[in-house]
Amino acid sequence: MAKAWATLGVDLHVEPTGPGVRRGLTDALREAVRSGRLAPGTRLPSSRSLAADLGIARNTVADAYAGLVAEGWLTARQGSGTRVAERTLPQPAPASAAAPRTRDPGRPAYDLIPGSPDLASFPRTEWLKAARRALTRAPHDALGYGDVRGRPELRTALAGYLSRARGVRADADRIVVCSGFSDALTLLGAVLRRRGLRSLAVESYGLDVHWNLLHRSGLRTVPLPFDELGTRTDDLTGVRAMLLTPAHQFPMGVPLHPDRRAAVVDWARRTGGLILEDDYDGEFRYDRQPVGALQGLDPDHVVYLGTASKSLAPGLRLGWLVLPPSLAGEVTALKDGGGWSSGVLDQLTLAEFITSGAYDRHVRAARLRYRRRRDALVSSLATRAPAVRATGIAAGLHAVLQLPPGTEQSVLRAAAWQGLAVHGLSRYRHAAAFTEPLDALVVGYGTPPDHAWSGALEALCGALG
Amino acid sequence: MAKAWATLGVDLHVEPTGPGVRRGLTDALREAVRSGRLAPGTRLPSSRSLAADLGIARNTVADAYAGLVAEGWLTARQGSGTRVAERTLPQPAPASAAAPRTRDPGRPAYDLIPGSPDLASFPRTEWLKAARRALTRAPHDALGYGDVRGRPELRTALAGYLSRARGVRADADRIVVCSGFSDALTLLGAVLRRRGLRSLAVESYGLDVHWNLLHRSGLRTVPLPFDELGTRTDDLTGVRAMLLTPAHQFPMGVPLHPDRRAAVVDWARRTGGLILEDDYDGEFRYDRQPVGALQGLDPDHVVYLGTASKSLAPGLRLGWLVLPPSLAGEVTALKDGGGWSSGVLDQLTLAEFITSGAYDRHVRAARLRYRRRRDALVSSLATRAPAVRATGIAAGLHAVLQLPPGTEQSVLRAAAWQGLAVHGLSRYRHAAAFTEPLDALVVGYGTPPDHAWSGALEALCGALG
Repeated sequence: MAKAWATLGVDLHVEPTGPGVRRGLTDALREAVRSGRLAPGTRLPSSRSLAADLGIARNTVADAYAGLVAEGWLTARQGSGTRVAERTLPQPAPASAAAPRTRDPGRPAYDLIPGSPDLASFPRTEWLKAARRALTRAPHDALGYGDVRGRPELRTALAGYLSRARGVRADADRIVVCSGFSDALTLLGAVLRRRGLRSLAVESYGLDVHWNLLHRSGLRTVPLPFDELGTRTDDLTGVRAMLLTPAHQFPMGVPLHPDRRAAVVDWARRTGGLILEDDYDGEFRYDRQPVGALQGLDPDHVVYLGTASKSLAPGLRLGWLVLPPSLAGEVTALKDGGGWSSGVLDQLTLAEFITSGAYDRHVRAARLRYRRRRDALVSSLATRAPAVRATGIAAGLHAVLQLPPGTEQSVLRAAAWQGLAVHGLSRYRHAAAFTEPLDALVVGYGTPPDHAWSGALEALCGALG
Repeated sequence: MAKAWATLGVDLHVEPTGPGVRRGLTDALREAVRSGRLAPGTRLPSSRSLAADLGIARNTVADAYAGLVAEGWLTARQGSGTRVAERTLPQPAPASAAAPRTRDPGRPAYDLIPGSPDLASFPRTEWLKAARRALTRAPHDALGYGDVRGRPELRTALAGYLSRARGVRADADRIVVCSGFSDALTLLGAVLRRRGLRSLAVESYGLDVHWNLLHRSGLRTVPLPFDELGTRTDDLTGVRAMLLTPAHQFPMGVPLHPDRRAAVVDWARRTGGLILEDDYDGEFRYDRQPVGALQGLDPDHVVYLGTASKSLAPGLRLGWLVLPPSLAGEVTALKDGGGWSSGVLDQLTLAEFITSGAYDRHVRAARLRYRRRRDALVSSLATRAPAVRATGIAAGLHAVLQLPPGTEQSVLRAAAWQGLAVHGLSRYRHAAAFTEPLDALVVGYGTPPDHAWSGALEALCGALG
């Protein structure tokens, strides 16, 4: 580390022997240029003299120089030797100045926000076993660029499962695997927009994140009226497509009334309309058999949308569409050109999880656990907050707690004081809904892990009491 | 199975006892309605009489009826009993008439199409081990809806790896995990379009699937000229952004000449232009250290795009962006609202794979294997087809075999006769390129599994000989 570097005023730490010499020298020089310790225009020692100084082979130095010339850090010109490139140095990037924040700025003690299952009950061991079986068995080409509709193993497993568990008329050829419900809805929004639709009917209550996805696709969302029997379907003039949660309205929790199921299917047949059926938590019904999917009544006019986000975990980012024949080609073509697709390993694992029966076992165990929570919620409310009426509790992972008029905001504040994260119903109401606003909490009793459940329930009762 | 069903002319198979009775009856009735065996309007026996006939509890029948009313298959009206719903029966979906075809209509014996690594060498055992460690260690909330930029574990691992292996200046906060390169490019295309760009400069040779993704985003692609030193960068008038493969031009195989690297970085600084750096196979270079990423020279104007598709497998659908601070917020916001995201389990597994050193070991082994194949290709050509010149062979998983002028199509036909799938260079040439067309094959020697490699090479030499 003598003359040559002394001249440059740079101290480099380069091990003189071993396979990493060239690499070490390259990295050290690059860093010296990047940091400004070697200024633009600086002439470097010849490779011969630097090699001698460092006690390493001349070729090693020449290679390192050549690599840095190729990368643009140095320049080599006939007659002027090797120099640091003449270029304004890049300013160090401001430390995350424009970087987006993470979403988790200190969380409350208890979480009853709906939309997530109990993540602590994700069947990790069973999932890993299924992953091992699936990956061991998969043909090599399963790991390549594949069918944009998703792996055939998963589409076949879903066709069987959905037919059996949800009454869906599913053909593996018309199932398209997506990165969760949002991806599926984005895809459908794009297809509808291409077909010339400008708007989509939605329910008066729902998730604004879904409405916003549709808005991004260029579709307005027009809320259908809502009454005590659920979404009203008596006036569908001008509607060409609608998004519904027929088995379990989100968040109100009622199933679509049988007459209205009949009405929307008749409407779809009569007008060629399209129904997007969001079956987000169809597996979870407690007091009787789940209401089967609307899609079974008319697979030519209903698009079925399902997801693993409630039955397993949102982090899997796995959802699926069952498409009418008239839409299958368009959706596949759009997906094909759009770069959308899901990793095959989770797809193969879910296929194995379903066909081995592990999925059914998991859903049964989860149903039992959530049912117990629901029962605990209802009985706690009966004693601790008798003025509060729990509705929408026959199914799903959440309940609507109806509050005395005008009290939603004060209850939310009381909940925050109790360290409880929970949502009011008002945030699920479409801005254009004609429905009279109701004061209520939407309580996601599926969300907390077991160990936090009783504390969460206590905090809730405290906020309501 | 007596009177009641005899009346209806329907034979149902319902087990009379056990927990599945209601379910079995429901399914059987639904199927009878669906298939038309129970015609619309048919009045069903009373629950009392059917229960007696079947020897099951009356409540079970009543529940099954109620479930099917709720689903819309039956109707129940005061005074007219339970009937099959009056509705035209859905026509059975035509058997996959409009369904898209799968992409695999009988494959050739050998595959030298570029773009895929050897899928047989995917490190299944090591990957499963990493998956087990990752999933065992992951906090529960990792399985929920998370940061749209991807799991922090993976972004941190990538920041370290890319800095070390590719000279990328990466901050985990500005890394965004995507579903492969296509997803990343689609996202960037949308952001550029929103910024008002109407076109993007691309290279004269490249992948039409990428150009088409950009066209879908509303951007024209304008090819930059190409000569023996690679893509020309001397006239960038009017260019605001460009997509390049600086380390290893695809498919020509040359690195971007150092002067031109300098020129594009200077252009970007001077004009505020943006360079999208596609570093698709940056890890694979055989005769010297890989050329470092252009992004290291100017992280404020270069977006780095990487992928696991070449180093591991396309089926993982994992890619990543390293974004300049000025773009990070926009890209994250767009992704946030767009439903794009990748499964967390593969993300956690890849993070573990990288940090445990398994990724480095895998890349080293793969590099050795591909290098041997390249050497075998070059020496076979030297003896069997001396008129053919192999270029672009210093790096990557493919070579360009330059053919005598006017012979590309006939060589492709000869290859097909040999049962060999291989591409001509003409399909990688941008339609608007001014460059003189060259006759050549683009040979993906990384593609076949080991056992098929020598056969593929033999077929190739046969087609060229």
